[in-house]
Amino acid sequence: MNSNEILLKNVKILSELSDIDRQNMEHQTELPSVNALKRIVELAKQVFFPGFFDASQSNENSRYYHVGANMDEIFNLLKSQVKSESIALEFINRMPEIKRMLYTDIDAMLHSDPAVKSQAEIILCYPFVQAMLHYRIAHELLVLGVQTLPRIITEMAHSLTGIDIHPGAKIGEYFCIDHGTGVVIGETCIIGNHVMLYQGVTLGAKSFTFDENGTPLNTPRHPILEDNVTVYSNSSVLGRITIGHDTIIGGNVWLTNSVAPYSKIMQSKAVAATFTDGAGI
Amino acid sequence: MNSNEILLKNVKILSELSDIDRQNMEHQTELPSVNALKRIVELAKQVFFPGFFDASQSNENSRYYHVGANMDEIFNLLKSQVKSESIALEFINRMPEIKRMLYTDIDAMLHSDPAVKSQAEIILCYPFVQAMLHYRIAHELLVLGVQTLPRIITEMAHSLTGIDIHPGAKIGEYFCIDHGTGVVIGETCIIGNHVMLYQGVTLGAKSFTFDENGTPLNTPRHPILEDNVTVYSNSSVLGRITIGHDTIIGGNVWLTNSVAPYSKIMQSKAVAATFTDGAGI
Amino acid sequence: MNSNEILLKNVKILSELSDIDRQNMEHQTELPSVNALKRIVELAKQVFFPGFFDASQSNENSRYYHVGANMDEIFNLLKSQVKSESIALEFINRMPEIKRMLYTDIDAMLHSDPAVKSQAEIILCYPFVQAMLHYRIAHELLVLGVQTLPRIITEMAHSLTGIDIHPGAKIGEYFCIDHGTGVVIGETCIIGNHVMLYQGVTLGAKSFTFDENGTPLNTPRHPILEDNVTVYSNSSVLGRITIGHDTIIGGNVWLTNSVAPYSKIMQSKAVAATFTDGAGI
Amino acid sequence: MNSNEILLKNVKILSELSDIDRQNMEHQTELPSVNALKRIVELAKQVFFPGFFDASQSNENSRYYHVGANMDEIFNLLKSQVKSESIALEFINRMPEIKRMLYTDIDAMLHSDPAVKSQAEIILCYPFVQAMLHYRIAHELLVLGVQTLPRIITEMAHSLTGIDIHPGAKIGEYFCIDHGTGVVIGETCIIGNHVMLYQGVTLGAKSFTFDENGTPLNTPRHPILEDNVTVYSNSSVLGRITIGHDTIIGGNVWLTNSVAPYSKIMQSKAVAATFTDGAGI
Amino acid sequence: MNSNEILLKNVKILSELSDIDRQNMEHQTELPSVNALKRIVELAKQVFFPGFFDASQSNENSRYYHVGANMDEIFNLLKSQVKSESIALEFINRMPEIKRMLYTDIDAMLHSDPAVKSQAEIILCYPFVQAMLHYRIAHELLVLGVQTLPRIITEMAHSLTGIDIHPGAKIGEYFCIDHGTGVVIGETCIIGNHVMLYQGVTLGAKSFTFDENGTPLNTPRHPILEDNVTVYSNSSVLGRITIGHDTIIGGNVWLTNSVAPYSKIMQSKAVAATFTDGAGI
Amino acid sequence: MNSNEILLKNVKILSELSDIDRQNMEHQTELPSVNALKRIVELAKQVFFPGFFDASQSNENSRYYHVGANMDEIFNLLKSQVKSESIALEFINRMPEIKRMLYTDIDAMLHSDPAVKSQAEIILCYPFVQAMLHYRIAHELLVLGVQTLPRIITEMAHSLTGIDIHPGAKIGEYFCIDHGTGVVIGETCIIGNHVMLYQGVTLGAKSFTFDENGTPLNTPRHPILEDNVTVYSNSSVLGRITIGHDTIIGGNVWLTNSVAPYSKIMQSKAVAATFTDGAGI
Repeated sequence: MNSNEILLKNVKILSELSDIDRQNMEHQTELPSVNALKRIVELAKQVFFPGFFDASQSNENSRYYHVGANMDEIFNLLKSQVKSESIALEFINRMPEIKRMLYTDIDAMLHSDPAVKSQAEIILCYPFVQAMLHYRIAHELLVLGVQTLPRIITEMAHSLTGIDIHPGAKIGEYFCIDHGTGVVIGETCIIGNHVMLYQGVTLGAKSFTFDENGTPLNTPRHPILEDNVTVYSNSSVLGRITIGHDTIIGGNVWLTNSVAPYSKIMQSKAVAATFTDGAGI
Repeated sequence: MNSNEILLKNVKILSELSDIDRQNMEHQTELPSVNALKRIVELAKQVFFPGFFDASQSNENSRYYHVGANMDEIFNLLKSQVKSESIALEFINRMPEIKRMLYTDIDAMLHSDPAVKSQAEIILCYPFVQAMLHYRIAHELLVLGVQTLPRIITEMAHSLTGIDIHPGAKIGEYFCIDHGTGVVIGETCIIGNHVMLYQGVTLGAKSFTFDENGTPLNTPRHPILEDNVTVYSNSSVLGRITIGHDTIIGGNVWLTNSVAPYSKIMQSKAVAATFTDGAGI
Repeated sequence: MNSNEILLKNVKILSELSDIDRQNMEHQTELPSVNALKRIVELAKQVFFPGFFDASQSNENSRYYHVGANMDEIFNLLKSQVKSESIALEFINRMPEIKRMLYTDIDAMLHSDPAVKSQAEIILCYPFVQAMLHYRIAHELLVLGVQTLPRIITEMAHSLTGIDIHPGAKIGEYFCIDHGTGVVIGETCIIGNHVMLYQGVTLGAKSFTFDENGTPLNTPRHPILEDNVTVYSNSSVLGRITIGHDTIIGGNVWLTNSVAPYSKIMQSKAVAATFTDGAGI
Repeated sequence: MNSNEILLKNVKILSELSDIDRQNMEHQTELPSVNALKRIVELAKQVFFPGFFDASQSNENSRYYHVGANMDEIFNLLKSQVKSESIALEFINRMPEIKRMLYTDIDAMLHSDPAVKSQAEIILCYPFVQAMLHYRIAHELLVLGVQTLPRIITEMAHSLTGIDIHPGAKIGEYFCIDHGTGVVIGETCIIGNHVMLYQGVTLGAKSFTFDENGTPLNTPRHPILEDNVTVYSNSSVLGRITIGHDTIIGGNVWLTNSVAPYSKIMQSKAVAATFTDGAGI
Repeated sequence: MNSNEILLKNVKILSELSDIDRQNMEHQTELPSVNALKRIVELAKQVFFPGFFDASQSNENSRYYHVGANMDEIFNLLKSQVKSESIALEFINRMPEIKRMLYTDIDAMLHSDPAVKSQAEIILCYPFVQAMLHYRIAHELLVLGVQTLPRIITEMAHSLTGIDIHPGAKIGEYFCIDHGTGVVIGETCIIGNHVMLYQGVTLGAKSFTFDENGTPLNTPRHPILEDNVTVYSNSSVLGRITIGHDTIIGGNVWLTNSVAPYSKIMQSKAVAATFTDGAGI
Repeated sequence: MNSNEILLKNVKILSELSDIDRQNMEHQTELPSVNALKRIVELAKQVFFPGFFDASQSNENSRYYHVGANMDEIFNLLKSQVKSESIALEFINRMPEIKRMLYTDIDAMLHSDPAVKSQAEIILCYPFVQAMLHYRIAHELLVLGVQTLPRIITEMAHSLTGIDIHPGAKIGEYFCIDHGTGVVIGETCIIGNHVMLYQGVTLGAKSFTFDENGTPLNTPRHPILEDNVTVYSNSSVLGRITIGHDTIIGGNVWLTNSVAPYSKIMQSKAVAATFTDGAGI
C-alpha cells in the first residue's frame, strides 16, 4: 500500500464510531466549556483577593463596579454551563461564605509555616490557596447538584498544584496544606476544623464494596479527621476510619485503623542496612 | 565598573560558547518543535475521543472529513519532525491500535473507581487518560526508532499530571492509575494486563551497573508486573524483580524482591509514638 | 428575593473590604508582574542553553547580539520589578556563575541515569533542569535581598515540575533530582556537592519553635546533607539533622536523626499480610 | 464633586437605557459573531485557492479531507449564524459557482495589468481578490435571504482593501478592480461581464426618492454597466443610467447620464492657471 | 567582507544615534501605549452602544456594574496615559455628551441612506460610526489639552475606515459620511449640523502661510461648512472659505471659493472624446 | 438530496484540482510567510526609529545589542524567505541608506504640514511613514532581484494606510504624502526629490501596449515627476509623461500630457448648476 492508501485505510477505521463511542457521546450531552470554567474561577479569585489579581479592584471606591461586573459574568457563565438559573443564583449567594472559608485557610497557614511573613505572601505564592479556591467553588457546585463540572474544576487545580481534592469531600475551616504535591483527598472524606496536611498525604479508600455485577459501590470509604489533626508528609490514611481530634500522624505512615483523640502515630524506625548489590542500595 | 561595563563584561562571558555548549549543540542537530508535538497529541486526542475535544467530530456523517484532516496533519507534522515519511506512515498505521488500548484503560478505570459514573466522565476529568494518551503515542514512536521526541511527549504529560512514564516501558491492556501524582514508571518496566497503580507509586531501579568508565549501563533494571497486579499509594517497587500475577501491594511499601503470584504485601505496622521535641512530632 | 436583588446583595457584601483585605493590600504594596518574572527566566534559559530554546542564538558570530539583547531585557525587567538598579546589576554579574552551576547539575545527571544519552537530551527533556533554573535564579535574588519574587519564581517551577525548592535553601554543585514529582526542599536546608534525590523526597522540618504569641520562628529546622549523599524515592529527612557525606538513604524512609558518613539507611522490611475486608487490601 | 462622585454620576447616566437603546437592542436580536464570519471567509478562501493559504491543501491526495473539514465547519458556523440549515446547505451548494466566478475575475486581471506575471501573484498580492471573495460570498447569502451578515462581510473587505461593494450589487464574470482604494459600488448596481474599474471609482446614486415621511426609498438608483466597460480612476458614475457595452470612461469624470455602446468619455481639459495666494495653488 | 563583518558594520552604523534621533527621542518623552488607547476606545464603544459589542451589557439590571467597570478602567488607563487625573476625570464627565452626539450621527444616516433598515444595522456595519467614535473621543481629549494621543486615536480609525478626520476639526450634530474611504477633514474645519459627506471628499487647505524661517503657520486654513450642507463623492473643498447653509456640492468638484447659502455646485460637464493611442483612453 | 449528500457532492467538486489550480500551485513554488515579512518590517522599524517602537532601544549604551539582535533576525528571516544568503546580506548592507532616506521623507513632512509640531509626532501618527517604510524596504528587495515578496510587503502598507506604491517605482529623497488614502504610484514611475502628494493622487498608466497574444507589455507607462513637484488631492497624472520640476498640479486634475518646469495646472472651474431631479443634485 502506498501512503495514500495507508492514510485512507486508517481514516476509515478511525472515522467509524463504535458502540462505546456513541454511548460516551450520549453521556456527555453537551460539552462543558473548559474556558468558561477557568474564567469563572479567575473572576472569583479577583473578587475574593481584592487587588491581588486585578489591580483595578484595589480602589475602594470603584471596586463596587468591578465586583459587580465580575459576579454578573460569573452568574451568566455559570447559568449557561449548568443550564439552571436558580443554581447559578444560589452559587452567587454562597460566594461570601466561600470567601470567608478561604480566609480561615490562609490564616491557618500563616500560623503554621515559619517561612511565611504575611497573608499577602501566601495569597501570591502558596499553591494550596489555588487548590482550595478551586475545591471550595467546586464543592459548593456539587452540593447544588451540578454534575461533572466540579470535578473538572478540581482537576484544573490538580494539574497546577499536584493537589487532588475530590469535590465531594467535606472540609472544615482553617484547613491548610503545605507544599501539597501528591496530596489526595477522597470523595467521602470528612475533615474537621484546623486540620493541616503536608505533601504526599493520601486520605483514601482502603477497600471497595461491589454490587452483584462487580461494579464498585459509592459508599463512605474515606477517613474522618476530627478537629486539630495534623498529618505529615507522604502518609496514607485509608478507609472509613476516624482520626480523633488533636492527633498527629507522622510522615510515611500507612494507617488503616481509627485512632483515639490526642494520639501520636509514627512509622516504625528505619534501620541501618547493608547494601550489597551494584552501586549500593 | 558602571552599569554598562558590568553588562558588557557579562554579555561577553555568556556569549562565548564553551566546548560543552558546542558539543550539546551538535547533539541536538535540529531543534524539535514542542508546538508541533503538542499539536500532534491534540489532533490524536480529537480523533480518539470523538466529540469530546472537537465538537465538529461528533457528527457521524461529516466526521470522516475531520478525522482525515487531523490524520493528514499528524502525518505531515510527524514527517517533518522525525525526518522520515515511512515512520510517520507507520505511526498512522498504528493509530487504531493505540485507540483500542486507550479504551481498555478507560474501561478498567470505570470498573475500579466507585466515584466515577461513566466513561465520559473519565475522558473529561481523569488525568491518567492524558498521561496514557501521551505515553501510548510516545511508546509507538520509540518502538519505531524515534529519538528524543518520545521523551518530550511523555514529559508534557508529566508536567500536566505528575505522572512520569518513560516511553520505553511496556504496558499491557486495561491499565489504570488513580490520582496519579508522583507515579514513576521506569524505562525497562514490563507491565501485564489489568494492572492498577495509585498515586506516588514508583516502579524504579534499585541499582545500576556501570561500565569501566563509570557510565551507568542501560540494562533491564525495573520491575516486571504480571497480570492483575494492584499497587497502592506511595509504594516503591524497585529493581529487576517480578511481581507475580494477582498480587496486591499495599501503600507505602518499599519492595526490592520478587514475590509469588497471589501475594499480598503491606508495610509493617505504624507505631504509637511519644513526641518530645518542639511542637510535637 | 429575585435574581437582581440576590446579585446586588452579594455584590455589596463582596465589595466591602474587610480589615484583613486592607492589611493584605498594604503588604503587597505593588503587584509583582508574573509575566515579567516568566520572561526573565525564559530569557536566561535562552542565554544559558545556547541554541536550545532560541535557534538564533546558535550562530557563534551573531550570538553576541542576542545574548546582549536578552541580558539587557533581563536587566530592565528586573530593575522595574525589584525597584533597585544595583540589585538588578548584581544579578547580571552573577549570571555566569549560575550558568556554571547549572552545567554541573546536568553533568551529574548524565552520570547517574542510564536512560539518558546526552546532555542535550537532559536539557530538552528533564524537568529538574527547569526546576534548577528557577531555583538558582531565585536563590541569587533572595541572597541579594529581594522579597517575595524569588518564591513566586520557584513556585512557577513547582507547578510545572512538581519539584518544590524553597529559594532560601543552599544547594551545592553537581546536584540532581530524577523524576522529581513531590520533592520538597525546605528553606534552611544546606546541601553539599554531588547530592542526588529521587522523586517524592522531603527535606523538611520536624518541629517548629514558637514565640510567646504562638508564631512559628524561622530558625534552622531543615537537614544538612553533606557531599555525595543520595536519597531514594519518597523518603522524608526531617529536622536540623546532618546526613554525613557518602551516605545512601533508601526509599520510603522516615528519618529524623543525624547519621554518620558512609551510612546506608533503609526502611524496615515490608511483610506479607492477610487482607480480610472487601476487595482485598 | 470629587472623583468618585463624578464617576458615579456618569456611570448612572450611561447605565440607563434610552428608548433608542432599547429599540436598537430589539433590532439586533442576537449578535452576529464577527469571528465566525471571518472564519467562514477564511475557510472558503483556503478551499477556493488550493495551497495558497493552507499548505496542507496542496497535496492532491489528502486535499479531500481538508476541503471536507473546511466545508463542514463553514456549514456549521453558517447554520448557527443564520439560524437556518437549509440556507447554510444551499450556500454550500453554491460554493463551486463562487469559485468559478472568482477565477474569471483573476483571469481578467491577468490580461489587464502589465505589472503582473501570474495568477499566483494576483491571488497572493491583489487586494481586489480579497474584496471579490468577500463580495461574492456575501452576495450569495443576501440572495438566499440572509440579513445584516452580508453587509458585515463586505465591510470587512472594505476595511482591509478600501473597496466598498454593497452585497446587493449584481456583478458578472471577469470583473476586476485595479488598486481599488476608494471604489464604491452601490446596492442596486448591475454590472455585466468583462468590466474593469480603477481606484476611486464610484458607481453611486444621484438622487433619492422619499416617501411621505421623508424616508428614502430603496429603489433602483445605481448605474447599469453593460459588458466590456472600463472606468478609469476617480470617476463617478451616478444614478440609474446605462453605460452601453464596450464603453471607456476616463478618469476623474462625473457622469450622470446614460451613454451609448462604444462610447469614450473623458474629463474636460485641465487648464494652466495662475496661482496668486500664499504658497501657491 | 564576509557575512559577519557585513552584519557587524551595519549594526554599528545603525546603533549610533544621530542628533536627530536624540532630538526625536526627547520629544517623545514617554511612549504612548497604543494598546491602552485601543482599549479605551473599545470600552467606550461597549458603553455607548449597549449590547452590541459586549452582550453582558444588554441586561438592564446588571448593566450598571459593567458600565461602571468599563468607565473606571477608562479613567485609570487615561490617567496613566495623560498623566493627569483631572483631565481623565473631565473626560469621564463628557462621555454622556459624546454618546448623545454619536446617536445624532447615526440618526442622520438612518434618514439619508435608502440601503439601511435600522440604527442597529448602522451601528454594526457602517465604518463612519467607528470613525466618529474615534474622532469624537479624540476631539474631546484635544479640547482638554492632551497632546499627540488624539491624533493617534483618529489615525487608528483612518487605518480601519479610510476616513481621516483631524481631531482638531469642529463637527456639529447629525453628521454623517457614507462609504467614507478617502475622506479628509482638516484641522481647522468648522462643520455645522446636519452635514453629510460622501467618499473621497476633502475639506482641506488651499495654501499655507509661512513664517520667516519657512515653517508653515498653523492658521485657520480649512473650510467652514454651515448647516445642512451635502458634499458628494470625491470633491475637494479647499481653503478658509465658507459654504453657506443648505448647499449641495456635486461630485468631483474642486472648489476654492466661498458659496452662498442654498447653492448647488457641480463639475463642468464631461465630454465625449476621441482616444487615439494604444488600447484606448 | 439530504444534507450529507449535498455536502459530499460539493466537497468532491471543490477537492478536485483544475488545470489552473495546478498551474497556480506550480507558480507559487513555496509559500511566502506573511508573518515573516511582517516581522522583518517590524524589526526594521524598531531599528530605524530608535525608542519609538521598542523602548529597550532607547538606551544609548545597550542599544547596540538590540540593533544587532534585530538585524540578525532580519538577516535570518530574509535568508529563509528569499533562499539567498547573498541577497539577505546585501539587504543588510543597504539598511543604513534606507534609514537615511526615510528621515528625509519625515523632514519633508515637517516642513510641509502646519498641523505637525515635531518629527516625533510624524513618526508616531502619520500613515505615510508606514507606507514609505514598507515601500523603501520592498523597493530594495526588488532591486536585489526578489520576486513577489516586495509586492506583498507594499500591499501590507496599502491595507493599513490606503497608500498603494508599487515596489518598482523609483522615488527620490524628501518625498512625502499627506493623508494618503487612495494614492496610487505605478510600477514604472520615476519621482525626483522634494516631491509631495496629497490623498487620492494617481500616478498611473494611460494606456497599455499589447503583444500579438493580447498580453499587456510591461513597458515604461507611468509618469516622471522631476524635483519639487506637488500634486494636490485626487488628481490623476497618467502615462509616460514628464512633469517638469517646480510644478504644482491642483486637485481633481486629469492630466495626460507632459508639462514644462514651473507650471501650475488646475481643474477647469466648477459651475453653479440647476438640479432638477429627486432630492436635488
